[in-house]
Amino acid sequence: MSEFDASASRSAPIAFACPAPLPPGDQVLLGHGSGGRLSADLVRSLFHPAFGDPELARLGDAAVVDVEGTRLAFTTDGFVVQPAFFPGSDIGALAVNGTVNDLAVMGARPAFLSAAFILEEGFPTDDLGRIAESMGAACTTAGIRLVAADTKVVERGGADGIFIVTSGIGTLPEGVHLGPEHIEDGDVVIVSGPVGDHGVAVMSRRAGIDFEVDVGSDTAPLTELVDVMRTAGSVHCLRDATRGGVATVLNELAASAGVTITIDDEAVPVQDPVRAACETLGIDPLYVANEGVCVAMVGSDSSDAVVAAAREHPIGRQAVAIGRVESGPAAVHLRTGLGVTRPLLMLTADQLPRIC
Amino acid sequence: MSEFDASASRSAPIAFACPAPLPPGDQVLLGHGSGGRLSADLVRSLFHPAFGDPELARLGDAAVVDVEGTRLAFTTDGFVVQPAFFPGSDIGALAVNGTVNDLAVMGARPAFLSAAFILEEGFPTDDLGRIAESMGAACTTAGIRLVAADTKVVERGGADGIFIVTSGIGTLPEGVHLGPEHIEDGDVVIVSGPVGDHGVAVMSRRAGIDFEVDVGSDTAPLTELVDVMRTAGSVHCLRDATRGGVATVLNELAASAGVTITIDDEAVPVQDPVRAACETLGIDPLYVANEGVCVAMVGSDSSDAVVAAAREHPIGRQAVAIGRVESGPAAVHLRTGLGVTRPLLMLTADQLPRIC
Repeated sequence: MSEFDASASRSAPIAFACPAPLPPGDQVLLGHGSGGRLSADLVRSLFHPAFGDPELARLGDAAVVDVEGTRLAFTTDGFVVQPAFFPGSDIGALAVNGTVNDLAVMGARPAFLSAAFILEEGFPTDDLGRIAESMGAACTTAGIRLVAADTKVVERGGADGIFIVTSGIGTLPEGVHLGPEHIEDGDVVIVSGPVGDHGVAVMSRRAGIDFEVDVGSDTAPLTELVDVMRTAGSVHCLRDATRGGVATVLNELAASAGVTITIDDEAVPVQDPVRAACETLGIDPLYVANEGVCVAMVGSDSSDAVVAAAREHPIGRQAVAIGRVESGPAAVHLRTGLGVTRPLLMLTADQLPRIC
Repeated sequence: MSEFDASASRSAPIAFACPAPLPPGDQVLLGHGSGGRLSADLVRSLFHPAFGDPELARLGDAAVVDVEGTRLAFTTDGFVVQPAFFPGSDIGALAVNGTVNDLAVMGARPAFLSAAFILEEGFPTDDLGRIAESMGAACTTAGIRLVAADTKVVERGGADGIFIVTSGIGTLPEGVHLGPEHIEDGDVVIVSGPVGDHGVAVMSRRAGIDFEVDVGSDTAPLTELVDVMRTAGSVHCLRDATRGGVATVLNELAASAGVTITIDDEAVPVQDPVRAACETLGIDPLYVANEGVCVAMVGSDSSDAVVAAAREHPIGRQAVAIGRVESGPAAVHLRTGLGVTRPLLMLTADQLPRIC
């Protein structure tokens, strides 16, 4: 199956004939880790029946659990980005910020982080040291304490350099309730910054592609920006637009909330070098991973105030409204510059595997 | 460097000329993931300076953190065991019980679990399904809720089948304070069951070794057993004897507490097939990983009661006192059947890599 199905679908808006999920004797595909439709199939048909916890089934960026009367957000994320060092950042900072952001978009205050390293024998200790320092610095910036860690090493060829899994605990202040169930008819869709930077930065150093592009990963903790936006107006739901990009997040939210979301293609901020790189690679920036960009669903009365507030923050300077929520069947539409409206579908698999 | 250094040292008790830790240009070795001396070097010389958190530096089985007045235990562990299925269990149950036990030996009540999967493209989905079901069943048995998960897939050759990282949160009841700082002169050392079962069970199916042995992994949640033991007497410190086995745990505790621990070799329970397998492989069962055995340091007044109580529990039936704590330099001694006392040193690396 092509990894470009969904891009193709934008010019030929025909619903996918989705492959039958996980027949016996089947094998795990790269797309099962994409965050797209195959990932969702794997979760729904294999993990949920086995694990069965309702909080897991809610599919939030982080679980919300009660511990002796305190609401905690709890999340985990694996990082397998290749290469481990890329313009603007590395796997270490990414692993910290990725988990911090999963907590932040729940409205939680990131508190404690764990990190598990799986290393390939022969991985340079200098590189490991740089990655660890990068993680330490990212923890300091994000105000989270790395309190638990583990290291495993597998033999040469048993892993691809370094994998990092981080898990995070955050505290949820009273009265903070964000999620797709709070999305309302008429909500304005805001993105907090230009899309596609992270994915393009990583791809620019990918073995076999390697091109020069004047763009770095956007990896950053979203906690402060989320605070600023929530203080300024009625933010109903937030997601960080990582694997699968803004388009995948919007599809997940439309499905969870049972609403129609319409996006104005020309309003979506994309930096020129990112747009050029995407055109060269034949991919769509709306599906490219970001690591410091969130999508917010905001009540229409205060959406201007939320955008204005976000723009005062260093990583929100290009925040902008890109669309609107309406009651209707669960779907995401894209209005193009020509005034044509097309479905913006969920990808079956990845455009860019191993981007985070 | 030989992976059998420490075994050799038992017949030639000369202190290690430890390799200089992590010179520039060095590479990660299998031993850096062993839980032995090389692991400790990596943590001390690379991770701690980069991360710097005092709770991390305490090197407990789990971090103990305060969240709005509630004490939580928080831990993470990576599982890279090869093969993924072995006599008595599989990587899934191991990944659940391993993290549950890191919480249990702190005296915490396991509450919430996360799981991150790193899969190799082509991994059979049937195997993944069996592993997920095994995890679900282990969670039910251990009374922990799996509330957060993530899946990443890397291309063929980018990982060795399946790796799982679990992280766990437990609540620490008031008044529960276990740790090496509570170990006292005169404490009795208890092991809760026969040692070496897990490591030998895994090795018996290892490619290139493959032998028949009538022993399965001992993987099991220790929570109930720990409760029973703590209720029966003055348990000062607990550790589950995983990577590096009982000998490594004792060395870590002796170093942390600054005490001398003397073990009676003949008192250590080892099942006959495990002993036979270890003799065949030339390894020492005291250094072989266990996944359902804990080491307890117990006040001498109540040690008989603790052993008796443990023996009432299904996984503690062979609990036994194996040694004693004395004030003195940080060291572990082994008294052999001939009455000779020898140092029981920490391994530099693994006898058996990728055992958990």
